[in-house]
Amino acid sequence: MERKQLTIVKVGGKIVEEPETLERLLTDFEAIPGKKILVHGGGRSATALASRLGIESHMVDGRRITDAEMLDVVTMVYGGLVNKNIVAKLQARGLNAIGLSGTDCNTMLSVKRPAGAVDYGFVGDVKQVNAGFLSSLLDEEIVPVLAPLTHDGKGQLLNTNADTIAGETAKALAPYFKVTLIYCFEKPGVLLDENDDTSVIPYLSYYDFPRLVQDGTISGGMIPKIQNAFAALQAGVSNVLITKAQNLDTLQGTTIAL
Amino acid sequence: MERKQLTIVKVGGKIVEEPETLERLLTDFEAIPGKKILVHGGGRSATALASRLGIESHMVDGRRITDAEMLDVVTMVYGGLVNKNIVAKLQARGLNAIGLSGTDCNTMLSVKRPAGAVDYGFVGDVKQVNAGFLSSLLDEEIVPVLAPLTHDGKGQLLNTNADTIAGETAKALAPYFKVTLIYCFEKPGVLLDENDDTSVIPYLSYYDFPRLVQDGTISGGMIPKIQNAFAALQAGVSNVLITKAQNLDTLQGTTIAL
Repeated sequence: MERKQLTIVKVGGKIVEEPETLERLLTDFEAIPGKKILVHGGGRSATALASRLGIESHMVDGRRITDAEMLDVVTMVYGGLVNKNIVAKLQARGLNAIGLSGTDCNTMLSVKRPAGAVDYGFVGDVKQVNAGFLSSLLDEEIVPVLAPLTHDGKGQLLNTNADTIAGETAKALAPYFKVTLIYCFEKPGVLLDENDDTSVIPYLSYYDFPRLVQDGTISGGMIPKIQNAFAALQAGVSNVLITKAQNLDTLQGTTIAL
Repeated sequence: MERKQLTIVKVGGKIVEEPETLERLLTDFEAIPGKKILVHGGGRSATALASRLGIESHMVDGRRITDAEMLDVVTMVYGGLVNKNIVAKLQARGLNAIGLSGTDCNTMLSVKRPAGAVDYGFVGDVKQVNAGFLSSLLDEEIVPVLAPLTHDGKGQLLNTNADTIAGETAKALAPYFKVTLIYCFEKPGVLLDENDDTSVIPYLSYYDFPRLVQDGTISGGMIPKIQNAFAALQAGVSNVLITKAQNLDTLQGTTIAL
């Protein structure tokens, strides 16, 4: 049987936290044909709320250290404020959205990351995605909206990187759907020159990747993003695109290829 | 066809906000046979968070005035913090729980209460419960955990009284299930003497109610609670019990009867 098309869109905090960019995103998301899933961040709002509460945000290599207080903050912001507002706005557009954290119907089980050189605190590495449950929602034309929170199955919520949530979801659903995974970030794609938005690399292959890391073209947070993309393709995901949210209507950007 | 048993338990903020009482509640909830739904509040945590953020809480007759800032607070606390922690703890007990606000799969549609003598702000009066969706979850042995948030279908989240959420859910599901609705609050039932916890009225009928209101035995927030109970019974709910959470194991308390 032909697998049906499924598009998974991951958008960062900046897009979903500003009313104008959020509306534009939801318009473009609504226009995507076929089944779809939205994965969101919310880091800026979490940092802002933490700051108002007098809780300091600590980041290591762009990843948040999540102590017990910060876990409450991200649970409120990701699972409550950002997630429920997106769902309400999608419902208003006629999409039957449902907001899910990893603990809801055990959508995403994770394991607390062991403290190594860095102790990230209540951060979870994904162990298992409940593909059956997500598939059954998609079959009913329901649109899952995933918050970057998981659980360990023993009652503990865990903070989990939204890029990882999107990648793991894509991989887990690849046996059931023809999955396109779209990572939206601030730039129109992977750039040859970070100061020139027109220097988008249209195709980035597994073969070219090490060279572009070595010569410094690709660096920082983009490296794990692209590694996630390769892992997704290797696990059967059909397409991975890296672009900015404003390009969702044309789907121009960097296509990652094996 | 015999309708299957469904128990809907509503618990107030105080129970779910303290770790020990929450664990006890979840143990008792887990032990309830058959299909079940948990409806929770979270008002004390919302008030505490608002206070830390320098937002004043205004109440009229025990009901919260919800301005835009307070709506964000309750969305974070009810939809995020309280809801997701309960779901994670139920998952740890082997119950396949899912946390839902009224906007998720349009579970509960409401209309913003018109400003009258009091402008309650972003408060919703329930218009429609998505009984089909809830039934389909229950049929799959999923346990819905409902946060007291609804939406207007036009993108606006609304704060909604948890007693009302429980009552409306019970009414909407009565055609599909034999519904027992249990309101848990601080006392072991409706008391003849508010200072004597042993003075529980075991059966409270529609016939006796006006007299007990007139002589002052029943007053304050208990009046709408019991009115909700009568409305639920009239709409086909099989049993309504008012008790304290600690009695969930024995189901002793005040049975409301028509």
